[in-house]
Formats: sequence, structure tokens, C-alpha cells
Amino acid sequence: MSDNEHIQLAHGGGGQLTAELIEQVILPALGGTALGGQQPGRLTDAAMLDVAGGPVAFTTDSYVVRPLEFPGGDIGKLAVCGTINDLAVVGAAPRALSLSLVIREGLEISLLRRVLESAGRAARDAGVAIVTGDTKVVGRDASDGLMINTSGVGEPLSQSGEVEIGFDRIAADDRVILSGPLGEHGLAIMSLREGLSFSAELESDCAAIHELTGALVRKLGAEIHFMRDPTRGGLAATLTEIAAAAKVDIEIDEQAIPVNRTARAAAEMLGLDLLTIANEGKLVAVVSAAAADEAAAILRKFEIAARAAVIGRISRAGVTPIVEMITGVGGRRMVQMPYGEELPRIC
Amino acid sequence: MSDNEHIQLAHGGGGQLTAELIEQVILPALGGTALGGQQPGRLTDAAMLDVAGGPVAFTTDSYVVRPLEFPGGDIGKLAVCGTINDLAVVGAAPRALSLSLVIREGLEISLLRRVLESAGRAARDAGVAIVTGDTKVVGRDASDGLMINTSGVGEPLSQSGEVEIGFDRIAADDRVILSGPLGEHGLAIMSLREGLSFSAELESDCAAIHELTGALVRKLGAEIHFMRDPTRGGLAATLTEIAAAAKVDIEIDEQAIPVNRTARAAAEMLGLDLLTIANEGKLVAVVSAAAADEAAAILRKFEIAARAAVIGRISRAGVTPIVEMITGVGGRRMVQMPYGEELPRIC
Repeated sequence: MSDNEHIQLAHGGGGQLTAELIEQVILPALGGTALGGQQPGRLTDAAMLDVAGGPVAFTTDSYVVRPLEFPGGDIGKLAVCGTINDLAVVGAAPRALSLSLVIREGLEISLLRRVLESAGRAARDAGVAIVTGDTKVVGRDASDGLMINTSGVGEPLSQSGEVEIGFDRIAADDRVILSGPLGEHGLAIMSLREGLSFSAELESDCAAIHELTGALVRKLGAEIHFMRDPTRGGLAATLTEIAAAAKVDIEIDEQAIPVNRTARAAAEMLGLDLLTIANEGKLVAVVSAAAADEAAAILRKFEIAARAAVIGRISRAGVTPIVEMITGVGGRRMVQMPYGEELPRIC
Repeated sequence: MSDNEHIQLAHGGGGQLTAELIEQVILPALGGTALGGQQPGRLTDAAMLDVAGGPVAFTTDSYVVRPLEFPGGDIGKLAVCGTINDLAVVGAAPRALSLSLVIREGLEISLLRRVLESAGRAARDAGVAIVTGDTKVVGRDASDGLMINTSGVGEPLSQSGEVEIGFDRIAADDRVILSGPLGEHGLAIMSLREGLSFSAELESDCAAIHELTGALVRKLGAEIHFMRDPTRGGLAATLTEIAAAAKVDIEIDEQAIPVNRTARAAAEMLGLDLLTIANEGKLVAVVSAAAADEAAAILRKFEIAARAAVIGRISRAGVTPIVEMITGVGGRRMVQMPYGEELPRIC
């Protein structure tokens, strides 16, 4: 392979071709704010961020979603939003991201450019700078397409620098809030893979949720006890983790959980439980009972959380913490931690 | 695959199997200080670091080296040391690392455990905590073995928080210092792949160099103008980048460059230029002429830099910045940016 349209192994060698790829493709695609406005050819080994003293949030995620582009997003947007969200749910304002590429030899450079443009757009929309990066190329036998790692640094939202969010703040009678309909990311990907006819109607919910978490923490402060984004393993994994770690029972009301009709149909056709499907732009918040309605109302002001609802309640655990759902017909169903995802490469 | 000895796709699903892998394999292997001593089952989405206000260094690198274990190191040690080194060379004390795994289905769990133990050991030896992580599993068709991304956060070494290191501080008459013999990492890997008989004698130089950079910056302060670790593309890539970015000429003396006999023989047998081969535990520093001998002496006190030497000199550039080497026989040779690495997956 020696054309200009595809990635070559030599693009990963750290020499002139690597420099050209970075300067001619990666930096322009990410856009002007990428790498802190460093001049091409003057990239240093680490970026310098100016932070206030005190706690700084730090997180990482590798993205291996397949296919690389899907309705509602692509691996670039997902990698930026996903890591922003991991910072958001610990009560931090996302400040800076790293972006590390592992590219398969032969990848179309036009595709690389598209997903990086998407990553750059997502970062700009969220007001977060991509400040440092890395590029590796691997052989055709060793990878498919493209994997992206993003890591992120964030600063606490509260002025005092105190982080008031944690499993240990969850208490009996707290309420559980979900910011919107379940399962859209996972179902968009799976429907596309399976070639389902309505796949075009299903769009990933891939979005940055830091404005949601920011509004909650700024307006309700210590009334917000815990936040998490229900990604791999879905709402079921998030709630069972909360129950186990906080040693509480959780009861959720199926009729209160927002679901889209197409998503419900797709889940049924694929034989999947909406509670276990990955979301990439949703927030689960555990909030004091007194503040729950206000929290849901605050969330509903954002377009991506227009259907936010109080879906459940925390109570003191019995011998073993459990999560139960009151079903639409009034029965009770145990919600369990999914054993293992049957459908890999969802994020 | 449903045994307990190999990674399954479901280990990456975010459910119970993922939790078991993290709690039973990954955290114990990384050792007690991993993830900031967070209790298993209580992992949050981002770690909180307590930092002084002011500049914070942030960097990322993905490691795709093949084979995963090699004389002198493995992908775990390499991932920890490599990212520590990227922080070290911008004048920062490494503070915390993230560690993100992309594991191929079928990987032996014993191998995963070994490389993570190695990563944990390297982090403890360097006094750096691994504070956040991520685990993905991909199919057999999609990856080989294991890829690791580490990102890192560091704090400036100088008390004032001023970072005095940068291309723009490089000036005519500065000296170039190299901390030790060239090419050992790349040659150890390549000899192993090629099955060369002396491969056992060649060990990767994989090591954390933050104590070297720390000693230089603390003792010589503003006399240290620039630092970099000559990894992919080797010394040739590092020096040509410095020349281009700082708009200076560089002259190095072949006879002053430390080289090991076995490495020289291996490079000759493989038809490779030692100047272009990757190193993973070496430092290139550009230092004022007045401080150069002292800088080399400071480095030589460390075992991994026992052969540190002043190898070259900066001068004002002509029309185009160039790097030249005075050869052993007194000739002159242009040192050029390698075009592309012919031997992929070296780091």
C-alpha cells in the first residue's frame, strides 16, 4: 500500500510520515482548538493545563465500537462524549481530553478524517479542549479499523472544591432519576449490524451530559447524592452496582421509565432487555426525596433530557441489597447485574 | 470458550464477569496502590487527585508492542514507564496514571496477570499511583493479544510552577546530552522476532527516567533547556525534530555516542541504523554549555544513565536547519528524520 488514500504501517513509525499524518490529517480534522493551539511541528510530549489547586478528576476509556459510524454518532463523537460523561458524573467540569488512536493499516484516510472531525466538533460543542494525543498503526491482522482512547481531566463543579457525590451519600428514601429513554445507543448499533429494517429510525443517544450534571450540582448542591451514566450493562448494571456499593435496596417503577416505541420494538425483536442495553447520553442521579421533582424539572429544560423522570426510590437493604422493578402489570421483577454482554463492541 | 483460564468476550460486557475480572485479576495484579486504594465494587467513573494549583502536565500513549513479553520488559512495564517518561521530559513529576486495556478474546489470563503485575511493580518503583482504568474485550478477528493505553498527570518539578523547558529555550552553543547506549529496546524486540541467536543478550532499556529529569531540573534549573525521550524514530527523529522546531543546526560526534557491542552487531546484522531505533529508557537533554559537564555527571550517578555523555552541540541554523554527525573516521553524515518505521509494533 503506497497511495495517499489509506493508512500505511509506516504512518505509525514516528518518522516523517507520522508527522505528516498528524499535521495534515489529524490536527486539521480535530480543528483549531486541538492540542491547545500548539503549532504543528512543535508538539511536546505532554500538554500543560492551568488548574486551580485542590481535587482534579481524572478518567480514561477505550472505545472499540463497531461499526465506526452509526446513526446518531461515530467512534469519534462517542470517545469525546463518553469521557466527558465520566468526568461529569463525579461532579467535575470537563477541562481537557487526550485522544490516542490505534489505526489499522489500510484504513481509508477519508474515514479517519470524518470521525476526527466529529470528535473535534463534539469537543468544541462541549467547550472542552483536546490537548494531547498519540498515533499508532497496527497491521491488518491485528485490529479492525480504529480504536480510540480518550482520557480526561476535570475540575470540581462546586466552588469549595468539595466533591459531595459518592456511594456513601446515598440514603434511604432518596429518589432515582433517569434523564431519558433507555437503550437507544445499543439498539442503534445492533439494529445496524443485524440489518433490521427500522435501523434508520433508531439513533444513538450519544451526547455529552456535563451540562445536565452541572445544572444539578450548581442548583441543588448537596441534595445530589450520586450520579452515573448507564453505559455498558445499561440501567441494570448501574442500579445493581449502586445497591451493592451503597448497601441499599432500590425499587423502580417500569411505567415511569421513559422508553421510545421504536426502541421497545427493536429490543423485542432482538430478544434483549431494555434495562441491560448501553446508553451513551443518559444520566442516572440519586437525589434527596425533597429535591427529586425539582431535579427532574431542571433536567427537562435540556433537549437531551426532555423526558427526565423520577423512576425509583432507595430503601434500607435487607440481608442482601436488591433491585426490584414494579412491572407495568403490577408484578415485581428482580433486576440483576447482567452476567456478560452478549453483544460485544458496543462502545 | 467458557473456561477460567482465558478471556471471554463477555468479560468486556460491563456486567458481573467484567466486575469479577477487575476485582479478581486486574486489581490484585496491579497491587495495593492501584486505583487509589478504592475498594473493589466501589469504583467510581473518575479518580480524584489532589493537586497544587497552577500548571498540570497531561499526556497519553497507546502501547501495541508485539510480542507482549520481551527481554528486559513487557507491555505492562512499557506502558507505565513510557507515560511516566512523557511527563518527565516536560519537567513534571509523574503523579498519577490511568490504565486502559483492550484485550483479545482468548488471551490467557495468566499472561494478563503477569503483565499487569509488571505494570503495578513499575508504578510502585516509580512512586506513581494507577488511579483509574477501563477494560474492553474484542473478538479474535479484531486484535492480537493486548493493547494498553496509559495516560498520565504530573506536577511541575520547579517550586515556582514555572516550566522552563521548551523548544524556544534552545540556543546556539547549547550542548546535547544522551543518557546511555542507543537502540536496546528496538533491537531486543526485533532480534526476538527474527530469532537471532544473540537475542537473549539484548535487553530492552525499558525504564522510567523521571529520576534523571528530576535531578537535572532540581540541580541545574534553567540551565536545562529541553528534554525528550528518543522513542519511535530513535535519536534521529528526536534531533531532527529539535532542529526543525528550534530552528537550529545540531552537530553530534559519533565517537561520543554510547553504544553497546551487542546492539551494534545486531543493528548491522539487521541492516538498521542505530540512530533510528527506538529507546524506552533514555533521555536526550539540551543544556547550556556551562552546565553540560555537570549535567552529564549528575546523570552518571544513576545506574540507568551510567554512560551518559555530551554527544553534540547546537549552532545557529543556516537556511534550513540540519543535523550532522561527525563519523568515527572523521567524515560528516547528514542525520535525517526517518521516513517511516519499517518495523511496526515496537512500542
